[in-house]
Amino acid sequence: MTDPKQSSGEDTLIARYFRPLATDPGAFGLVDDAAILRAGGDEIVVTADAIVEGVHFLADDPPDTIARKALRVNLSDLAAKGALPAGFVLTLALRAHDDGWLAPVARALGEDASLFGCPLLGGDTVSTPGPLMISVAAFGRVAPGKMVRRGGAASGDLIVVTGTIGDAALGLAILKGGAVATALAQDAAASRLLVDRYRVPQPRNVLAEAVRDHASAAMDVSDGLAGDLAKLCAASQVSAVIDSKSVPLSAAAATALARGAVGIEAIVSGGDDYEILCAIPEAHFAAFAQAAGLAGVAVTSIGTVTAGVSAPRFLDAQGREIALKRLSYSHF
Amino acid sequence: MTDPKQSSGEDTLIARYFRPLATDPGAFGLVDDAAILRAGGDEIVVTADAIVEGVHFLADDPPDTIARKALRVNLSDLAAKGALPAGFVLTLALRAHDDGWLAPVARALGEDASLFGCPLLGGDTVSTPGPLMISVAAFGRVAPGKMVRRGGAASGDLIVVTGTIGDAALGLAILKGGAVATALAQDAAASRLLVDRYRVPQPRNVLAEAVRDHASAAMDVSDGLAGDLAKLCAASQVSAVIDSKSVPLSAAAATALARGAVGIEAIVSGGDDYEILCAIPEAHFAAFAQAAGLAGVAVTSIGTVTAGVSAPRFLDAQGREIALKRLSYSHF
Repeated sequence: MTDPKQSSGEDTLIARYFRPLATDPGAFGLVDDAAILRAGGDEIVVTADAIVEGVHFLADDPPDTIARKALRVNLSDLAAKGALPAGFVLTLALRAHDDGWLAPVARALGEDASLFGCPLLGGDTVSTPGPLMISVAAFGRVAPGKMVRRGGAASGDLIVVTGTIGDAALGLAILKGGAVATALAQDAAASRLLVDRYRVPQPRNVLAEAVRDHASAAMDVSDGLAGDLAKLCAASQVSAVIDSKSVPLSAAAATALARGAVGIEAIVSGGDDYEILCAIPEAHFAAFAQAAGLAGVAVTSIGTVTAGVSAPRFLDAQGREIALKRLSYSHF
Repeated sequence: MTDPKQSSGEDTLIARYFRPLATDPGAFGLVDDAAILRAGGDEIVVTADAIVEGVHFLADDPPDTIARKALRVNLSDLAAKGALPAGFVLTLALRAHDDGWLAPVARALGEDASLFGCPLLGGDTVSTPGPLMISVAAFGRVAPGKMVRRGGAASGDLIVVTGTIGDAALGLAILKGGAVATALAQDAAASRLLVDRYRVPQPRNVLAEAVRDHASAAMDVSDGLAGDLAKLCAASQVSAVIDSKSVPLSAAAATALARGAVGIEAIVSGGDDYEILCAIPEAHFAAFAQAAGLAGVAVTSIGTVTAGVSAPRFLDAQGREIALKRLSYSHF
């Protein structure tokens, strides 16, 4: 039916790689200019995050991991807001039509779209003379008024994080060589775990409903625990005290710390964790922890919300405040 | 309240330039990880388009025009779908924090957000070593089932376009120098008009309701009239015959054509028009034209939908088919 003259390289690329992912009826098989997102009675939660070659991922990272990261950093935002995934739009800026790169990217996106129930709705494919960039806007659904905000934490609430902190920053450090790589040189499994954590975040979407039901405030940890906690506290007009030795570490990160290859400062200010940071009223913690246990996600109380508007303090084992030179990653 | 240590350059950039634009309550002043889009009883129409330095705009284009183009190419999609703007998210990939560039960009985006009733809801700001890129996802509202699709055109419908065709492609040709620039060298006003049409599209959002009420199929002309018409016909499983001398031209474009600096082929296959292309059942045309007249937008019937699935034909004044080497712009 299609006259060859009608079919551009861009259309071919979309038809071959991305149309199979557009399983939602609102995506219209990517043959229209726009998609339809049905809200039902819900509100739509909107988030956007982009990743750039050489900044958020490395040029030689496997293409499937780059694709997963692009979508998952957005899924992580939806999870932290207590929203259920509804779909995403994808903007790809590519230097060339490279099947060897596009095929695993599309396959990985399709797998993650299924895994997280977040179908591709549309997007744009553009050429660039510069670095690869993947820009995603993702949508979630939440009952009206139920999106969990950054503001809302109250004095006395527990500060809770999911999973483990610092792994991704250590994984990046390993890829760059240096002290961490040397410290774990004999431990391939630990190194691989940390690199995997850098390349492929594990967004905690299975906890979205528990966050919605129990958290007074939440966000995902993307730029570094210390900096992100400072943002949550500022939005809530509170402060916090963190017991640094409670910060959950993977065995690999604990090994790197024990061998002196990295300090706790770098762990709590490294980026790319994509864990949920939330404030949970003490009376809700048992129920939250139980829901997390059922979902197979570790949650750890690492401190307490306090009154005041000073920056959160991280205390060491002796109760002394740890000086943090930088709290998180900033692009500028 | 904000400890200096909490504030990254990225946060400062967002607070200074983009928070003033986040006037919608669902944007939460850009201090949260996500925004809320209320659908009410409507469906949400989602579209995404990105523009890249050196591809969609030139490095020395005025920053305010780049910003307007980034938003307006998306607004144009919403207009063609019959949707009313509801908001947008913005992803900026920047080489550096350059106030001289950011200030006019933010001012222009704020002006267009007001003008088109499309507030900034959120986004992401990332650093890139490469070309500037602005990626927008825009949202519109439409009553359930009322989004105007590309499919739906029926044999006998009129093919209608808004405004004038080819101006933007001629504007780009002028900026690149060559025959068009030479032909209009003595006519500064005409040259300026064409360049303005390239740099700052005029999306026809005032016609969204008329399109929704009267069009059987619609899309915006972004890649070139001939190629986009072919897409509309393919989606509708119809063909079309276009009377090329009916294609509406600005006086400036008509002059360039009369002086032989450009052919009609280049005009109907040039990109960046951002006019609405639609199929209007004949019985609806008078009402559509009247609504367009009230809105101050010219609409022109340029041909007819025909049965069959062959590519649309463009006929010259003698009724002969014009051979089109390429139908539209493709990135790959």
